[in-house]
Amino acid sequence: MATIQDVARTAHVGVATVSRVINENGYVKAETKDKVLRAIRELNYTPNEMARNLYHKKTGIVAVLIPVVSHPFFSEFIKETEKVLYEEGYQTMICSTFRQQNYEEHYLDLLNKQQVDGIITGVHTLDIKHYQNIMRPIVALDRRLGSHIPCVAVNHEKGGELAAEALIRSGCQKVIQMTGHRSVSSPSNARHEVFEALIKTHGIECINYLTKWNGFEYGDYSSAAEDIAEKYPDIDGVFATDIMACSLIHALAKRGKICPRDYKIVSYDGTFASRIPYPCVTTIEQPIAELASVCVGLLMDQIQGRIIKEMNIQLDVHFRQGQTTAS
Amino acid sequence: MATIQDVARTAHVGVATVSRVINENGYVKAETKDKVLRAIRELNYTPNEMARNLYHKKTGIVAVLIPVVSHPFFSEFIKETEKVLYEEGYQTMICSTFRQQNYEEHYLDLLNKQQVDGIITGVHTLDIKHYQNIMRPIVALDRRLGSHIPCVAVNHEKGGELAAEALIRSGCQKVIQMTGHRSVSSPSNARHEVFEALIKTHGIECINYLTKWNGFEYGDYSSAAEDIAEKYPDIDGVFATDIMACSLIHALAKRGKICPRDYKIVSYDGTFASRIPYPCVTTIEQPIAELASVCVGLLMDQIQGRIIKEMNIQLDVHFRQGQTTAS
Repeated sequence: MATIQDVARTAHVGVATVSRVINENGYVKAETKDKVLRAIRELNYTPNEMARNLYHKKTGIVAVLIPVVSHPFFSEFIKETEKVLYEEGYQTMICSTFRQQNYEEHYLDLLNKQQVDGIITGVHTLDIKHYQNIMRPIVALDRRLGSHIPCVAVNHEKGGELAAEALIRSGCQKVIQMTGHRSVSSPSNARHEVFEALIKTHGIECINYLTKWNGFEYGDYSSAAEDIAEKYPDIDGVFATDIMACSLIHALAKRGKICPRDYKIVSYDGTFASRIPYPCVTTIEQPIAELASVCVGLLMDQIQGRIIKEMNIQLDVHFRQGQTTAS
Repeated sequence: MATIQDVARTAHVGVATVSRVINENGYVKAETKDKVLRAIRELNYTPNEMARNLYHKKTGIVAVLIPVVSHPFFSEFIKETEKVLYEEGYQTMICSTFRQQNYEEHYLDLLNKQQVDGIITGVHTLDIKHYQNIMRPIVALDRRLGSHIPCVAVNHEKGGELAAEALIRSGCQKVIQMTGHRSVSSPSNARHEVFEALIKTHGIECINYLTKWNGFEYGDYSSAAEDIAEKYPDIDGVFATDIMACSLIHALAKRGKICPRDYKIVSYDGTFASRIPYPCVTTIEQPIAELASVCVGLLMDQIQGRIIKEMNIQLDVHFRQGQTTAS
């Protein structure tokens, strides 16, 4: 493979001149530039991108932290984020935490060691104190990491309200909602609070079922669904994320319970998983493509040194009427 | 942030000495090494990983090329691959082609420009001639890219055979299988050939339904499912990938057709999607975690300069009996 020295020798110029041409940096006479470009073509020289990036102090890589990519919400978020990053000239590094706190620490370290230019994080494993002293580009999805880090989320209050209204409208008397651990400061907790309050206002029983901490694998959902189907055979209303809703519809069908005849259900997220069960599931959709594009935009602002005016971005949710609640 | 120069100044040594200590390369007196390490701790110095990697001629990054990450097979493959790469000390760059040939070219270029140390590719967009002259580490999942690139796949012939047997055993008379474009040289085509031959041997009608080229989004599957449900209302046996099977079960349920009463179905892949429908779907499972670990192993062999003896690795499939075919 040809080196920069070979190019310099062939073009009869110094290495620094070749470097200036490649990096489009500093003055080079038109005639000299032509000679260098000709030598590059002739030798089929490819600049070592690592060396180029070191020179420009950028890697061209953004790390996206998620719990696990096989979860439909995160796979769709990664898909959309990768698409926008690609358009911005960045490659996407996928960083799953697999429930391990030390993984998240390791990924933060990638940023400190300048192996990536920025981080978009949708994970919740590490204490936020680890983020306090990081002054490099970070955007948080659905998590408050401190006033110096922008946070992007949907209007989860509205999401909880729309879900509760659908079940109330359907005449449910005993509903269950699946919640994650509230110890994490996430805007998404708000949907559970609003949901519960609204359900109770209407004199309806509300059970909060705590799912496994950071359990995002399908096996976690199906065992939770089995547990619920056994413990609460008389529930008639359900509010759960898409994939949890799929598991629960399966577990209840196994026991002869059919939706909407025996119970009603509203799912949350609006990923492809929400479109699998029949009858069509009533769903609160998060605008995943828009979440991704806002996250990338805020990260680019930081990378390119622009000032961020609004640190808390809230996007709208959308109610999709299905056949699993009364219309 | 402290620089290597600061460390050298504090430790009263030269920059080259600090570099030798950091990179554990070349002789440094124990006493001097202590002084350097003390200065590093004192100044809270983090070496720039890009510079280190440039020195070691490695990036610590592997690119995994897939059509799109929201497809359950690819999201599970990425999950397992990332897990194994992490254990090997590598980060995973996700490279989706989104149906664009130039994306695949761009990703190959990452390897040429030494932005990644190797590629694991599960995509089919680019002509294989682009791979002919690449002498850097590559492993192909389910695709033959040339005799110099190892190919990892399951025993798809066996997969097709097991699927056909299940539908024959169930007494089907008119079956449909969903196939991708055969123009691509992929070991996975074999399952369709074996399936069709075996079905026909038993005097059963076999329809081959060609799915959209590189259509891996859920919308592609659900429109194919609608089309099939309209065009072939009298099919009584189906062989399709998990996510296609999910779509078809939905489309047929919408028309009052219930499995296994009105038709039988066998799905392929064994991802979480195959566990969503009820009754439980009979499935031919690919060992995704094992595929990932073999791919990573073969890539590490190339990165570390070991000779690869077997260029075509074939893993076993597993038959999972569900309730959508006769047992």
